[in-house]
Amino acid sequence: MSFSLGFVDEESMSMFTDLYELTMCASYFDNKKFEPATFDLFIRRLPPNRSYFLFAGLEQVLLFIEKIKFTEEHIDFLRKQGFNDEFLEYLKGFRFTGEVWSVPEGTIAFPNEPLIRVTAPIIEAQLIETFILNTVNLQTTIATKASRVVNVAKGRHIIEFGLRREHGTDAGMKVARSSYIAGCNGTSNVLAGMKYGIPIFGTMAHSFVMSFDREIDSFRAFVKTFPDRATLLIDTFDNIKGAEKAAAVAKKLERKGFKLSGVRLDSGDLADISKKVRELLDKNGLKHVKIFASGDLDEYRIEELLKKGAIDAFGVGTRMGTSADRPYVDIIYKLCEKMNEKGEFLPIMKLSKGKTTLPGRKQVFRSKDKKGNFVKDVIALENEKVDGAPLLVKVMDNGKIIHDLPSLEEIRKRAAENLSKLPAKYKELKDTLRYPVKLSPKLERLIKDLTEKLKRVEFS
Amino acid sequence: MSFSLGFVDEESMSMFTDLYELTMCASYFDNKKFEPATFDLFIRRLPPNRSYFLFAGLEQVLLFIEKIKFTEEHIDFLRKQGFNDEFLEYLKGFRFTGEVWSVPEGTIAFPNEPLIRVTAPIIEAQLIETFILNTVNLQTTIATKASRVVNVAKGRHIIEFGLRREHGTDAGMKVARSSYIAGCNGTSNVLAGMKYGIPIFGTMAHSFVMSFDREIDSFRAFVKTFPDRATLLIDTFDNIKGAEKAAAVAKKLERKGFKLSGVRLDSGDLADISKKVRELLDKNGLKHVKIFASGDLDEYRIEELLKKGAIDAFGVGTRMGTSADRPYVDIIYKLCEKMNEKGEFLPIMKLSKGKTTLPGRKQVFRSKDKKGNFVKDVIALENEKVDGAPLLVKVMDNGKIIHDLPSLEEIRKRAAENLSKLPAKYKELKDTLRYPVKLSPKLERLIKDLTEKLKRVEFS
Repeated sequence: MSFSLGFVDEESMSMFTDLYELTMCASYFDNKKFEPATFDLFIRRLPPNRSYFLFAGLEQVLLFIEKIKFTEEHIDFLRKQGFNDEFLEYLKGFRFTGEVWSVPEGTIAFPNEPLIRVTAPIIEAQLIETFILNTVNLQTTIATKASRVVNVAKGRHIIEFGLRREHGTDAGMKVARSSYIAGCNGTSNVLAGMKYGIPIFGTMAHSFVMSFDREIDSFRAFVKTFPDRATLLIDTFDNIKGAEKAAAVAKKLERKGFKLSGVRLDSGDLADISKKVRELLDKNGLKHVKIFASGDLDEYRIEELLKKGAIDAFGVGTRMGTSADRPYVDIIYKLCEKMNEKGEFLPIMKLSKGKTTLPGRKQVFRSKDKKGNFVKDVIALENEKVDGAPLLVKVMDNGKIIHDLPSLEEIRKRAAENLSKLPAKYKELKDTLRYPVKLSPKLERLIKDLTEKLKRVEFS
Repeated sequence: MSFSLGFVDEESMSMFTDLYELTMCASYFDNKKFEPATFDLFIRRLPPNRSYFLFAGLEQVLLFIEKIKFTEEHIDFLRKQGFNDEFLEYLKGFRFTGEVWSVPEGTIAFPNEPLIRVTAPIIEAQLIETFILNTVNLQTTIATKASRVVNVAKGRHIIEFGLRREHGTDAGMKVARSSYIAGCNGTSNVLAGMKYGIPIFGTMAHSFVMSFDREIDSFRAFVKTFPDRATLLIDTFDNIKGAEKAAAVAKKLERKGFKLSGVRLDSGDLADISKKVRELLDKNGLKHVKIFASGDLDEYRIEELLKKGAIDAFGVGTRMGTSADRPYVDIIYKLCEKMNEKGEFLPIMKLSKGKTTLPGRKQVFRSKDKKGNFVKDVIALENEKVDGAPLLVKVMDNGKIIHDLPSLEEIRKRAAENLSKLPAKYKELKDTLRYPVKLSPKLERLIKDLTEKLKRVEFS
């Protein structure tokens, strides 16, 4: 066994899967099941305190589906796991040939609504399950969480600061991406800046201050290097004393024609300290110096701080970057129809207790009021005539992405529009109302008929 | 902007950092601060319900430090961010030249104990901070969580099943690795099997069952492909009806000389259903068929199920794979000493409210009783004479790993030994006792003296 950083690369993606996807596919193959089927990706229920999801992760899903393939190394490993030669031969030539429909990234969505709908020969549709769940779970969990933080900050800047405690390298990248989609103004993650074009921000850490003999020496050294954009961390020893020193440095900087950008608070009673620091800065004619706060922040803390404090911008880390109060969504990928021998698609569902699914190929229709505000959604069968605008659009045909992917800025803009059209009562931090999502009459009827039929067949 | 799967590769690692590491380093450079300094990686406090940490992630830390470098692409990007040419020239030739001490992976640790100690020219020691925090946070959080799951299962097999809701691709790999270190018996993650040699397991999903006209057809098809190792998922429509069909299939399989491995329950009242299914299987002479349970499991649920149910093995997913009740540890990396102009190392600390640090170059000493059980730890200055065995060992010198890295199996064995030597009272799921960790008299004295000195200097 070689030692490894264990990073997943493009070539390895096909093996980034639960083993059962491969065992099921081996058995589909063995039993000559090659017929098309449709799977829905959806989220079963709302996390506590949330009333909506902000959908993110589609770009990576589509790139994955387009590129998935198996290498000789993969085939060799699977042979050692006992997979037979016929199936392995099939995997060698595997590529995805189906179609994909999806709601666009940056769309507000609700429980049980199909977010991505895949129709393909069943082996192909099955084999892509794990990666899709993995990336949409992460990005939608974080985009949703971050949208709450952005919303509560009422226009004050939010910088995503969580890289050090996000779950590994891929999470570090995807959290930066999805929190930027949700409206954050930037990230501390330099690589996300380079790869995604997200604005990057950084101040200084305690170690910088501590590495000098005196705190004020560290401030002087830092503004020497960054005279036009320094934010000084002032809590290493005492916030108020730190603020006094920062003010002295700022005044000296002014005489050289530069302005101190800000000071950062990272501990103690942030609301109280921020007011004292504001007063101190203002007295010194430093109204332009921004107060930046960080340290165990999330939407709940920020709401409080805005009521009581004098903070201009927030660095939000661990709790947003891990969605700490609920680090996942109940996202699943379920079969909803399959083709029979006659070439007809038949709707199917499961009855597992508390985990039933919606049968048939579906569409989501969203009704809006005259101002464009979201009023209600209806989940219907695909070809039903239902009021409202359909949310799912075709994004892939015969395994190829069929239109230009939106840029990150476009996705971010869509998210902002969607969030602005979601009435405020669905954006409260706690005790949020449930947005109305109905099933169409035809879908209701289908569920009833199918449940009865399944009970006849399976319970006899 | 190109579209991207956004995976981090070995070459990109140096840019996987918070911007402030680079701005601080630019200012260290600008102010000609090249002196050596020491940083401690440690965890500030215990998460709720935990009384220890299981340390994991060192292998990736060391490989990262050995390999970190900056490419032309990185330098170009940083130039556009405003970094000056002298500093960028320095980065072009950057490599880590310092020494690293660490507790071995798979060691039990406690708050405030240095887990990794880095001594290097301050720019080098600073620049590696973010990645170290990122990977040790993830792996230690998960290893700790998984060790609780393994401990409460009292020898019943635990398979890590969380790939679909772990945070991205790197988390998928590192969760498999760290939960295996903690004693899990395997993972569903095929790539983790291939890259890390971890045993892989898989059953079937509901979609497989639903893709056949009747549930029993799906069971027959699956055992046809895997006659000697099939585990059938029996809850798609009704657990008990499913168990009856599985029993019928198992009996027929027996006549062909094969044994059904197991059945899987994934919904409903698992304790109650497992007892009924056990009875049904036993009545049919199928005592060898194991009952495997999955679905929203964690250590708390498993403790309950073991009291009331008849379950042989558990698939544990999201809640373990995200450490859902606390998806992070309060891990930090702090400066504790620096060299002065005379070439002497001077201890340093910060006083931030609720976030003070321990000064000086330290070692952790662990005392054991005659049976080898852990009794108490003392955090002391490195060269102090203190009872107990030192935990930190030198693992890197002049930027090179100085001894063979242990294999994953060796790390797993160390973890099992460590966990077995930690008295049971520290392994309760709730209301756990605090393990005694003391500061040595010399360290106490140093903190007192230094606090007084810092207050004199900084508060005047």
